[in-house]
Amino acid sequence: MNTGKAEIICTGSELLSGKLNLYVPLFHERLTPLGFAITREQSSGDSLASIRGCVRSALKSAELVLVCGGLGPTFDDLTRQAAAAALGRRLVYSKGCAQILAFNYKLKTLPPNFKNQCLLLEGAKPLENSNGTAFGQIITQGRKMLVLLPGPRKEWEPMFPHFLDAEISSFFGRPPIRQLKLKIAGLWETQAEKLLRPVMRRFPRAAFTILAGPGTVEFLLSGDDSGGMVGRAGAACRKALGAKLYGEGEDTLASAAGARLRARGKTLAAAESCTGGLAAQLITSVPGSSAYFLGGAVTYSNRAKIKILGVRAGTLKARGAVSAECAREMAAGARKVFASDYAFSVTGIAGPDGGTEEKPAGLVYFGLAGPRGVKVFRRQFRGARSLVRACAANFILDKLRKVIK
Amino acid sequence: MNTGKAEIICTGSELLSGKLNLYVPLFHERLTPLGFAITREQSSGDSLASIRGCVRSALKSAELVLVCGGLGPTFDDLTRQAAAAALGRRLVYSKGCAQILAFNYKLKTLPPNFKNQCLLLEGAKPLENSNGTAFGQIITQGRKMLVLLPGPRKEWEPMFPHFLDAEISSFFGRPPIRQLKLKIAGLWETQAEKLLRPVMRRFPRAAFTILAGPGTVEFLLSGDDSGGMVGRAGAACRKALGAKLYGEGEDTLASAAGARLRARGKTLAAAESCTGGLAAQLITSVPGSSAYFLGGAVTYSNRAKIKILGVRAGTLKARGAVSAECAREMAAGARKVFASDYAFSVTGIAGPDGGTEEKPAGLVYFGLAGPRGVKVFRRQFRGARSLVRACAANFILDKLRKVIK
Repeated sequence: MNTGKAEIICTGSELLSGKLNLYVPLFHERLTPLGFAITREQSSGDSLASIRGCVRSALKSAELVLVCGGLGPTFDDLTRQAAAAALGRRLVYSKGCAQILAFNYKLKTLPPNFKNQCLLLEGAKPLENSNGTAFGQIITQGRKMLVLLPGPRKEWEPMFPHFLDAEISSFFGRPPIRQLKLKIAGLWETQAEKLLRPVMRRFPRAAFTILAGPGTVEFLLSGDDSGGMVGRAGAACRKALGAKLYGEGEDTLASAAGARLRARGKTLAAAESCTGGLAAQLITSVPGSSAYFLGGAVTYSNRAKIKILGVRAGTLKARGAVSAECAREMAAGARKVFASDYAFSVTGIAGPDGGTEEKPAGLVYFGLAGPRGVKVFRRQFRGARSLVRACAANFILDKLRKVIK
Repeated sequence: MNTGKAEIICTGSELLSGKLNLYVPLFHERLTPLGFAITREQSSGDSLASIRGCVRSALKSAELVLVCGGLGPTFDDLTRQAAAAALGRRLVYSKGCAQILAFNYKLKTLPPNFKNQCLLLEGAKPLENSNGTAFGQIITQGRKMLVLLPGPRKEWEPMFPHFLDAEISSFFGRPPIRQLKLKIAGLWETQAEKLLRPVMRRFPRAAFTILAGPGTVEFLLSGDDSGGMVGRAGAACRKALGAKLYGEGEDTLASAAGARLRARGKTLAAAESCTGGLAAQLITSVPGSSAYFLGGAVTYSNRAKIKILGVRAGTLKARGAVSAECAREMAAGARKVFASDYAFSVTGIAGPDGGTEEKPAGLVYFGLAGPRGVKVFRRQFRGARSLVRACAANFILDKLRKVIK
C-alpha cells in the first residue's frame, strides 16, 4: 500500500521518567484513514534544544510531522519556540487568537499567560481548542506539513474531525484510506495468520497488521477503498474467520456477549474463583451492563462456594475446588441464586504458587450454565498470574457469547 | 542532580501501528540507579535506514545509547546492520558466540539462522542471553557507549544485573544513584506536591518526580546516595506524608491492605455494585491473597443485594441502592455471609448514564465493616466511567488498609 510518511513527536519529561506513552496507537488510528503510516516516534523531554532537534530530524524524512504537547502557558512549554527555531521562522502575536480567547473566556484584557498562547509561527494557521486555551497550529513548508498540538487528549483529539482530517486530506491529496479492525477470539496469533493468509494474498494492495492479546487477536486491515477493495477484503476475512470473529472496532468480548444478552432480553451472573472478579469487572466496564448483568460471586474460600453458590461440601472434599465438578456446581449455583438465564464459573490456579503435579499453576476449569443445562471446559494456560487470569476471563466470555441463543 | 544523558531506541513496526511501548518506564527504572536520565526515546520501524538514522542522531547528543529489538534471525531484524552502518564498523563472525550457542543448544553444526546471530560489530563485547539465542552487544567509541539488546523483555532484562549494571558503572564511573518510589493515597497531585515541597527545598541535589494515578500519587526521589542523602530525604518525605504513605516500590493499595491482614491473621470480604468486581480483582491480583480474601459479591441487581447480602427491601425502596444505608447494609451483610473480620462495600453511579440531579454520575457510597461496627463514606468523583470506578476502588482500599488493627 502506498502510504505517506508521518512522524510523531511527544514532549514531556514524564514520558521519559515512568509514564507510559499512550498516544502513539491513537495517532496511528487517526492517521491511517488519512493515508499516512507512522515511520518514527520520538519522545522528548521539555528542553528547547531537544525538541528543536526532534522537529528538524523529523522534517528531513517525513512529509507530515505532528508535535504533541508543550503548548501550555508555563515555563516548561517550549514547543512553539522550538518549532520556530527549527524552521527559522519568527513567532508573531495573533490578535485573532486573542479575540477568540477573550470572547470564549469573557475577558476584557488577557492575562500574560493567555497572551503567550496567542503566539503563532509566522504563516501558521491556528486550530481552535474546544477544551482548553492552547491553539493548535498548522505550518506548511514546500510539500511538508508541521502540526503543533496541545498535550491533553481531550484537547488534541477533537482537532482531527474539526480541522485536521480536512486540512491534511486537501494539502496532500492522498486517496482516502479505510481501516477495519477485526476482533478474534479462540485462535492463537499464528492460527489467525494462517487462516487469513489466503485473503492477504488475494488483496496485495491492502495493509494488514496482527496484534496478539490474552486469548484474543486483533486484525487490522486498511487500504485505498476508492474501488471498494477494503470492503471486499473485509468480507473475505469475515467469511474465513466465521464464529472466531467476535466483533469489530471497539468491541470487546464483554460488549459482544452483552449485546447478545441485551438483544435477546436475557440475563447473566458470574461465579469466579481464580479470576477474582476480573470477568465481572470486564462485563461491568461496558456502560449499560446493568441491563443484563445481575451480579457475580467471587468465592475464594470453600465456605463461600458452599454458602453462596451451593457447591456441595462432598464435591470439594472428593474432587477439590479446582475440578470439573466444582466448576459445574458453581455455574449452576450462580444461575440459581441470581435467578439469571445464563451463568458462568471459573475455578483454577492462577499461580505462581498453589500448583501441584496433578493440578499445575495455569490449570482452569469453567462452567457455563444456561436453559439447556451446564457445560464444563478445562484449559491449561501458561504464563504469569495476570496473563493466566486474563486468558481465563477471555476464554469464558468467548464461550458465553457463542452459547447465547 | 548531575545525571548522564541516555537515549533509548525501540525498534519494531508494531510500536508504530497500534501496540503500546511498555519498555520506556522499565528502562527508566534500570538507568536511574546507574546515574542516567533518559533524554529522548525513539521508536523506529524495521527499516535499516531509519534505525541507522536514529542511532546516529542519538549518539550525537547522548553518552549512552540503548537499542532494543531487531537482533533476531529473520529478514526484518536489522539492528546489527544499522548500528554497524551508523558507526562505520564491519560485522564480524564470532567463533566464541558460535561455541556458546552450540554448547547451550547441544548442536554439532549451527543452522544458518543461528549463524546470523553470531555477527558482532567489530570490537563489540557480546552479552550472553539466558532466555534466547540473540546476543546483546556493547560497543564503545571514545567516551560513548552503544548497547544493542534483544527485544523480548525476558531476554534483555536479566542482562542488566548480569552484565550491564557493572559495565555501565565501570565505563562511566558515575556515582551510584539510589531511587525511592513512595506510594501515596488520599491526596491530589497538587496536595502531595505542597506537602513535599519543603523536603524538596531541603534536598536540592535530589531529583523528584510526581506521577498522578486514580486517587493515588507516586513520588519518585533519586540522587547520589554516597553521603546518605537519599535516605535522609526519604525519611523526611515519610514523615511529611504520615498515614498518606501506603507503601513503597512495587506496593499497591491492595498489597498494602493485604499485608496488614496477613500480619494480623484477619480476613476480608467485598460487596461491590458500581465497581463491578474491580476491587476484588485488585485484591486477588496479589499472589497469595487467598490467605486472607474469602470472597466478594458483585451485586448489580437489587434482588442480589437482598438475597446474597441481606440488604432490606425497605432500604432499597426508601433510600435507593445508591445510599448510605444501602452501603452500610451491604458491608455488614458481606461480613456476615463470608464470616470475615472485615468487609467493605461500594455502591454508586459509575456513569455515563444513570445519574439524576439528586444523585449524579460519579456519586459513590462506601461501607467498611469491622469488629467495631460499620463506617460509611460518601464521595463525588468526576470523569469517565473507568476513572470513577478506579477512583472508587482505590478510595475504599485506602480506607481499608488504615482501619485494620
